[in-house]
Amino acid sequence: MPILKTISSPSDVKALPEGKLPQLAEEIRQRIISVTAHNGGHIGPNLGVVELTLALHRVFDTPADKFIFDVAHQGYVHKLLTGRNGPEFDKIRQSGGLSGFLTQTESVHDCYGAGHAGTALSAALGMAVARDLKGTKEHVVAICGDAALTCGITMEAINNISVSTKRLIVILNDNEWSIAKNVGAIATYLNELITSPRYNKIDHDLKSFIEKLPGGQNLVEYGRRWKRETKDFIVQSSLFESYGLRYIGPIDGHDIGGLTRYLEFAKAAEKPILLHVLTTKGKGYAAALSQPEKFHGAPPFDIETGLSQSTKKDAPANYQDVMGTQLTRFARADKRIVGITAAMSPGTGLNILKDNLPGQFFDVGIAEEHAVLFAAGLAVQGIKPVVAIYSTFLQRGYDPIIHDIALQNLPCVFCMDRAGLSPSDGPTHHGLFDIAFLRPVPGVIVMQPKDEDELTDMLWTALHTPQPTFIRYPRGAGTGKPIKETPELLPIGKAEVLRNGVEIQIWALGQWLQEAMQLADALTLELGVTVGVVNARFAKPLDIELLAQQARSARLLVTMEDHVITGGFGSAVLEALQDAAIQRPVIRIGWPDRFIEHGTTVAALRMANGLDFDSIKDRIVQQWKQIVTVV
Amino acid sequence: MPILKTISSPSDVKALPEGKLPQLAEEIRQRIISVTAHNGGHIGPNLGVVELTLALHRVFDTPADKFIFDVAHQGYVHKLLTGRNGPEFDKIRQSGGLSGFLTQTESVHDCYGAGHAGTALSAALGMAVARDLKGTKEHVVAICGDAALTCGITMEAINNISVSTKRLIVILNDNEWSIAKNVGAIATYLNELITSPRYNKIDHDLKSFIEKLPGGQNLVEYGRRWKRETKDFIVQSSLFESYGLRYIGPIDGHDIGGLTRYLEFAKAAEKPILLHVLTTKGKGYAAALSQPEKFHGAPPFDIETGLSQSTKKDAPANYQDVMGTQLTRFARADKRIVGITAAMSPGTGLNILKDNLPGQFFDVGIAEEHAVLFAAGLAVQGIKPVVAIYSTFLQRGYDPIIHDIALQNLPCVFCMDRAGLSPSDGPTHHGLFDIAFLRPVPGVIVMQPKDEDELTDMLWTALHTPQPTFIRYPRGAGTGKPIKETPELLPIGKAEVLRNGVEIQIWALGQWLQEAMQLADALTLELGVTVGVVNARFAKPLDIELLAQQARSARLLVTMEDHVITGGFGSAVLEALQDAAIQRPVIRIGWPDRFIEHGTTVAALRMANGLDFDSIKDRIVQQWKQIVTVV
Repeated sequence: MPILKTISSPSDVKALPEGKLPQLAEEIRQRIISVTAHNGGHIGPNLGVVELTLALHRVFDTPADKFIFDVAHQGYVHKLLTGRNGPEFDKIRQSGGLSGFLTQTESVHDCYGAGHAGTALSAALGMAVARDLKGTKEHVVAICGDAALTCGITMEAINNISVSTKRLIVILNDNEWSIAKNVGAIATYLNELITSPRYNKIDHDLKSFIEKLPGGQNLVEYGRRWKRETKDFIVQSSLFESYGLRYIGPIDGHDIGGLTRYLEFAKAAEKPILLHVLTTKGKGYAAALSQPEKFHGAPPFDIETGLSQSTKKDAPANYQDVMGTQLTRFARADKRIVGITAAMSPGTGLNILKDNLPGQFFDVGIAEEHAVLFAAGLAVQGIKPVVAIYSTFLQRGYDPIIHDIALQNLPCVFCMDRAGLSPSDGPTHHGLFDIAFLRPVPGVIVMQPKDEDELTDMLWTALHTPQPTFIRYPRGAGTGKPIKETPELLPIGKAEVLRNGVEIQIWALGQWLQEAMQLADALTLELGVTVGVVNARFAKPLDIELLAQQARSARLLVTMEDHVITGGFGSAVLEALQDAAIQRPVIRIGWPDRFIEHGTTVAALRMANGLDFDSIKDRIVQQWKQIVTVV
Repeated sequence: MPILKTISSPSDVKALPEGKLPQLAEEIRQRIISVTAHNGGHIGPNLGVVELTLALHRVFDTPADKFIFDVAHQGYVHKLLTGRNGPEFDKIRQSGGLSGFLTQTESVHDCYGAGHAGTALSAALGMAVARDLKGTKEHVVAICGDAALTCGITMEAINNISVSTKRLIVILNDNEWSIAKNVGAIATYLNELITSPRYNKIDHDLKSFIEKLPGGQNLVEYGRRWKRETKDFIVQSSLFESYGLRYIGPIDGHDIGGLTRYLEFAKAAEKPILLHVLTTKGKGYAAALSQPEKFHGAPPFDIETGLSQSTKKDAPANYQDVMGTQLTRFARADKRIVGITAAMSPGTGLNILKDNLPGQFFDVGIAEEHAVLFAAGLAVQGIKPVVAIYSTFLQRGYDPIIHDIALQNLPCVFCMDRAGLSPSDGPTHHGLFDIAFLRPVPGVIVMQPKDEDELTDMLWTALHTPQPTFIRYPRGAGTGKPIKETPELLPIGKAEVLRNGVEIQIWALGQWLQEAMQLADALTLELGVTVGVVNARFAKPLDIELLAQQARSARLLVTMEDHVITGGFGSAVLEALQDAAIQRPVIRIGWPDRFIEHGTTVAALRMANGLDFDSIKDRIVQQWKQIVTVV
């Protein structure tokens, strides 16, 4: 790769003759395709922004100037241009390699980290206002996708931009997709902006003018004139101008020369400006172009065929697909059941519902709060909504969960996929807080299945429970447990004893039960004591009766959860024991009270955080020995 | 009140001759003024919607048709028209009286409860889609203020309306105010809609047509024609049409006849429609008209003078005003300090900063998520933001608190006013969950002062701490403690011993310390044991060292917090004791795990929930006796 290898900083990008840029773009695409084929990753979005990112680095000077990438999954090109093209890029999304997103700790060129959508404009506005307050001169550029416009925070930011600063550049990177095809009125509107002859007239006049400009011309003066001459017309011309942003577009997002001139124009603007840039997701790779949803964020794949490499023929189904399949089964039999997601239909398995029962499926866009409230409105009228949102994104819906769902005791079902770790994504995507933030909410039920058959039972139970219910389950493959034909109604708040024992009782949630059973065997062998294992099933309400009964005879309790150790399931056990006036030693196994990094696998991250089998066993053995010694 | 007394249901409103409505409106106003003068309440918003609410009940039929009032603080008129004009209205916002908001449990005419802003359109869309799925025919009407448009959820809903249903009526009740004067580009935009000759032309044509219509004319046919004839013009005409909503406005919100005809038109529309209704906050009461911010939600006042009745001359200052005053002092000395609020500047005391240092003050509108992210952007660039948001509304900012503030370890200060109870507002406004939802977040500091001087120290300490800090404090008056001239830097994670003792140790947060000191005296007297009292100061990080040291000698620990008992400060104590391998009985005093109703005072609600002094003392005495007996 003769050019890319010579790029170690943005100044190298600037020094290149314009004629070399297409070749550099091609080399970047090949680099991204080859690494994501091996590691998986956000290939489509990155292939779409190659020229845009090159143009940004030609026109602006990071780290002095600030780029805030929304979601920041499209930052691979930026990484390659800012000194991160070495072995760390080969290991992107793996233990010891680069993050798949942007994070301040990785480079001075990354001024703001992300992972969730819709944060860029607000953060960029904060940075622009900070600049104004300090009297410095740097440029602040927010780069967001069209899907960010379905997210309320972006609109909150847009409402505040023109009243807060005169200088902020927003790049609307419009590829018509979020993870899935974009939804809602805004998608239609953007399409109209692009295709309407009226808007294109504005654009063509401006376009011909700007494209005739040599790079050095007085753009500031032009900006002033343009504003004056076109104001009356423009004020009415777009949604963005209703909010006081100057709108320019559509702009070809793969023409580096044109992009550069528009960015120079924006740089000189004395009013917040939005450039509507059209890009093609997956550009330069046929498989990604033909399957944009799959190649938004893909597992490792074969470059020739585009086929995923990961799926063994006999691998157990993913939890998400079990959920989607079973929900579809239940929804077919009961038309009151509907599924709702917020731009995560394949990731939550709701694409199965969409394909089979499209009238009972709703994708509201990247709009988690609206998703929860929409479900509340449906539930009030007797519909049975199942809201499928990743654990980490449901943090967005926290207030309506309390204020609307729980306070009105609405029978909505929440399926929290990716509870626990999302290992290659890292701290922005781990779902480690949901038990702690849900437990204090009165009247909610929080459960976690030990396998996919129990997930089915829990979904069935939730659909028959007149209260808000939350089911958390991990990313990825299930245990392979077959799903029984008739699902079982689980008694609310009742745990399941999997192994009898007396001296040590292990209460575990979800997939930790597999380790719990092995631990019980190992501890029995090593300590010569009887060890019980309980599938807690419910983090709220806890099976207090069984817990108290066991605790009275036990000398040590152990809790295990795929959740941060603070405020989680283990803490629920501590509370219940005190409420029953029982004092016993309890070891709480869970993720430590710090943000957990990204890594190749869950196993690697457990090992790195003291949660591997041996570390857990040693901890229990040590505490047991102390207990025995004291007595 | 000859007419109002005859109204016991909406059918009585419909039966009245049109000529009687102005008198009824006047009687409603007098009733609201007289009751809120006594009880306090949202007088201004309710005086503004008298005619609108009358027109709604003339045209639609609740409970079959559905009214979803955003925030629902403007529901007093609706209550008076739906059978709630008896003694329960006299006691609105007091123990045993009506809620100051709407709640499903109060009336069949209240189909959806609220208290927080911005939820109505989403919930209404859910109800409209439920109707479409079920094939029923009722009308769904969402009534929201213009301030709701600053809230991202409303925009998320607007993006989904036109793609989800053909029948939804949105009333935009535009009075140019939220709690404070509205902010942001949308306020400017709405003003332009009202004043631009272009928009008024559209409106005048429609207006003259509609106003000529007799009530029974074929509105459906008209709606079709109007749509066809004006489509090309209208498509470009407003922000709302960009989202596929038909826009009609501005409409005089105090002309019942006109309103009725526009609502009949909307009822017949076959496309989602937004009516832009102009109302005057406080209409009919001079004091409320001249001081709209004060009379948004006012404490009891004298009807003649409009002066508040509650403030005794020597009453201690409210926590909010102490915060605003001290923040202003610190911000004057350090220009990097700025205050941010989300449409709560008087309630948080930030109006003091606004009045004195307007360049260091930001009100972002009802946009809590944006407020948090805007602070994050400022902090990244070296500004020191202080975000002042009520505890209950900060639930809206939960995801950016985790994903942006804590993950990037940004030194932002969060002042959570109204932590604990907001007694006359009730369950939508109590701040009882913040410790539980913040504790699991890595790296955050959560503190609560025992008095206003310590609040000042905590604010000062937070401004000098390179980590995210959260300070929670109650609504209302402080203790009267004078503020020392030079604030003290408090050591992070260190508690303060207020009373020495050994056998029983009481760890309390905030204003519970006053009760704790009295309890200690009473327990010493009654049980003959020494009782220590500790001002915990920090819920996170906890003073584990002091706790462990005390716990080793103590026989009983008591925790006290103005927070739900699940996952809160007491649970932090349980976790810390287990982590130190100490088993001791711990009584956790806090609010029970259910939603707490509204009531006249905090004292009344404590009494009703077993948290009065005697109940707490009895509980401790009982447990002490058990402990002694067992040994």
